[in-house]
Amino acid sequence: MSDPRPHVVIVGGGFAGLWAARALAKAPVRITLIDRRNHHLFQPLLYQVATAGLSAPDIAAPLRHILRRQANVEVRLAEVTRIDPTLRRLWFSDAESLDYDYLLLASGATHAYFGHDEWAANAPGLKTLDDALYLRRHLLVAFERAEAESDPAKRAAWLNFAIVGGGPTGVELAGTLAEIARHTLKNEFRNIDPTEARVRLIEAGPRVLASFPEDLSERARRQLQKLGVEVSTGVAVTAINRAGYQLGDDFIPARTVVWAAGVAASPLARSLDVPLDRAGRVIVQPDLSVPGHPEIFVGGDLASVQSDGRPVPGVAPAAKQMGRHIAAMIRARLAGRPAAPFRYKDYGNLATIGRMAAVVHFGRLKLSGLLAWWFWLAAHVFFLIGFRNRVVVLLNWAWAYWSYQRGARIIFGAPEESPPDQ
Amino acid sequence: MSDPRPHVVIVGGGFAGLWAARALAKAPVRITLIDRRNHHLFQPLLYQVATAGLSAPDIAAPLRHILRRQANVEVRLAEVTRIDPTLRRLWFSDAESLDYDYLLLASGATHAYFGHDEWAANAPGLKTLDDALYLRRHLLVAFERAEAESDPAKRAAWLNFAIVGGGPTGVELAGTLAEIARHTLKNEFRNIDPTEARVRLIEAGPRVLASFPEDLSERARRQLQKLGVEVSTGVAVTAINRAGYQLGDDFIPARTVVWAAGVAASPLARSLDVPLDRAGRVIVQPDLSVPGHPEIFVGGDLASVQSDGRPVPGVAPAAKQMGRHIAAMIRARLAGRPAAPFRYKDYGNLATIGRMAAVVHFGRLKLSGLLAWWFWLAAHVFFLIGFRNRVVVLLNWAWAYWSYQRGARIIFGAPEESPPDQ
Repeated sequence: MSDPRPHVVIVGGGFAGLWAARALAKAPVRITLIDRRNHHLFQPLLYQVATAGLSAPDIAAPLRHILRRQANVEVRLAEVTRIDPTLRRLWFSDAESLDYDYLLLASGATHAYFGHDEWAANAPGLKTLDDALYLRRHLLVAFERAEAESDPAKRAAWLNFAIVGGGPTGVELAGTLAEIARHTLKNEFRNIDPTEARVRLIEAGPRVLASFPEDLSERARRQLQKLGVEVSTGVAVTAINRAGYQLGDDFIPARTVVWAAGVAASPLARSLDVPLDRAGRVIVQPDLSVPGHPEIFVGGDLASVQSDGRPVPGVAPAAKQMGRHIAAMIRARLAGRPAAPFRYKDYGNLATIGRMAAVVHFGRLKLSGLLAWWFWLAAHVFFLIGFRNRVVVLLNWAWAYWSYQRGARIIFGAPEESPPDQ
Repeated sequence: MSDPRPHVVIVGGGFAGLWAARALAKAPVRITLIDRRNHHLFQPLLYQVATAGLSAPDIAAPLRHILRRQANVEVRLAEVTRIDPTLRRLWFSDAESLDYDYLLLASGATHAYFGHDEWAANAPGLKTLDDALYLRRHLLVAFERAEAESDPAKRAAWLNFAIVGGGPTGVELAGTLAEIARHTLKNEFRNIDPTEARVRLIEAGPRVLASFPEDLSERARRQLQKLGVEVSTGVAVTAINRAGYQLGDDFIPARTVVWAAGVAASPLARSLDVPLDRAGRVIVQPDLSVPGHPEIFVGGDLASVQSDGRPVPGVAPAAKQMGRHIAAMIRARLAGRPAAPFRYKDYGNLATIGRMAAVVHFGRLKLSGLLAWWFWLAAHVFFLIGFRNRVVVLLNWAWAYWSYQRGARIIFGAPEESPPDQ
């Protein structure tokens, strides 16, 4: 190519990568944005796809479409397998390669089983749309299997749901599952009573939503219990198999265990050959560049960085801020200006718990219950990409509120993918 | 079971099966409705899911939910593998069995390749939600492959789309694909021009939409051509492989061939051991019962029957009417009243062609173009099951009309399911 502009390559179209690309719209660079998927995903609402409240396309938008008017970006659907920082080159799974002048690595995180990868088969996690659709199918099939099962013990195992991990995803899933069993499926079955389903949220630490103040954690626990969720804290799951899970001294028969506990950084970080933290994240410089490679930046869940002496959390607002900071650093480099450290601006923290229940912590403001839920809803709809998605999601919520129904309770995927009978 | 009511077993929750079940709501029977899927599907809009205009849940509703208030129905998610008319018993894939007093077999049709089953791998059809999602992924990936391809011949093959079969499904798919290439994807790619995509509709017979009057067929052809579709009639595809298809003397390189040509009845019909027609459908008695087995009925696409001397077409209104007729026949049998022949009431015929274009034939009324399209839209939204679905579908259409956008352009499914590069 004879294009004289510096080539910025961005790996990952999540919050960090996409926000960086947009912030470089007027910079004298050409950008290639690479993602394995064709869409940007609004991960905070992924649990709603898993629990059949929303369709997959409601929380995703094609990257090409988002960036169609930004002429200096080319979007490429591909998987990056290796990076050579010395050559300033990266390779794709089809053996092609691409050279860069600046690189932003923002390929995110996946779930981690703390050295127990054998649990993955029986405790699916929730990071991608495919994960969400797999989980939806599993949850809907579990009630179907219970309905068809005549043995009471086997039936109880199909109606026993465990969620491992008391962070925001675990809390959201537990609350929504309890709502489905208590309200949505009411009257639809003839042999089982869905309200007999048991939903247990398990957190090894002392409290759920550990990133919130203690009093909000306690209120979240009470709201969960009111919705019918059993909350177990200070106790760890030590084994998971097809039949159930081991919790302390008890083995609990359960056909559904959802993993919402651990994350690990994308393995791509390893090919940079720089220091990683225990979760596999890149320990970046204060300006988010990589030690020894000022032309490589890392952002989003893949970056391990401190701001004001505290680790920056792996949340969407932090990823967006990192993306914008990295764009500013590239522009500064091109203009010969010095680098500046990244500072995370914490606007607050919010988590939903279930029907009309949430907790909000914004500076001195602490809310819980219905008011917090409205706050949560407004924030999430506002931050969705695309006008159509906002309208559809609002409509779905209005409908769910009014009718207790969940519109996406459709099982698809080949039958052999559903859990077999034994 | 000590339930003294006669047991009506319905196999298939499509239009025939579901309408029969609802028409038996007040009959002194207990009903088991069996389907391999958990949902009723509004098949007339399936092409919209395949072309990313609608989400899968927009055109489907859980059978349990539709029938939740009808206390005499039990819904069972299972696959029927065999029927023994002598024992009045059927078997499931898990080897369990179920006895019936009355049976309605309405398991529908699948696509048929006229003895060329080897074409199936390279010419997917469109009968289920899984088919539609597979096709959507394939279509979206084709443009991505073209964008990444530097060899002009290979790129052209990725941008070459053929639809085999000029019936309503083929016409709808061809028109929508042309719209996507000409409008939806405009400006989103950097290396290809999506408007260079070629969409060809191939019909072996003399004209498209053969079930319509000749002048409407001709108008449909002209509307298709205006949308940019090449229409080839009177010529048959004689080979399909990974690289393309043989049309007359020409081999045309194309990575996407969609099969909308033939249907074959569900293979379950064979286990009844009664005469079938060439498409594998059961040749039923005038009252829709099976010869020699007055307690077995066949409805929907699986039934081969004449009304007023003409074969009843495989369309949704005919299936609904058959379902209701069979329910009436079962009630008559229980009350000791005589059977009556099924008479198909033909309310008309309508097919959509693409953006704002359709043809309508209702008695003496013949419409084409925009007015026909509004007619088509109103009819389809009206017949969708569920208030929420109607609102969401209308909203999606309004959005697509205003913006030329298609909200569901999201590729999911494991990457290995997408077509490999060579």
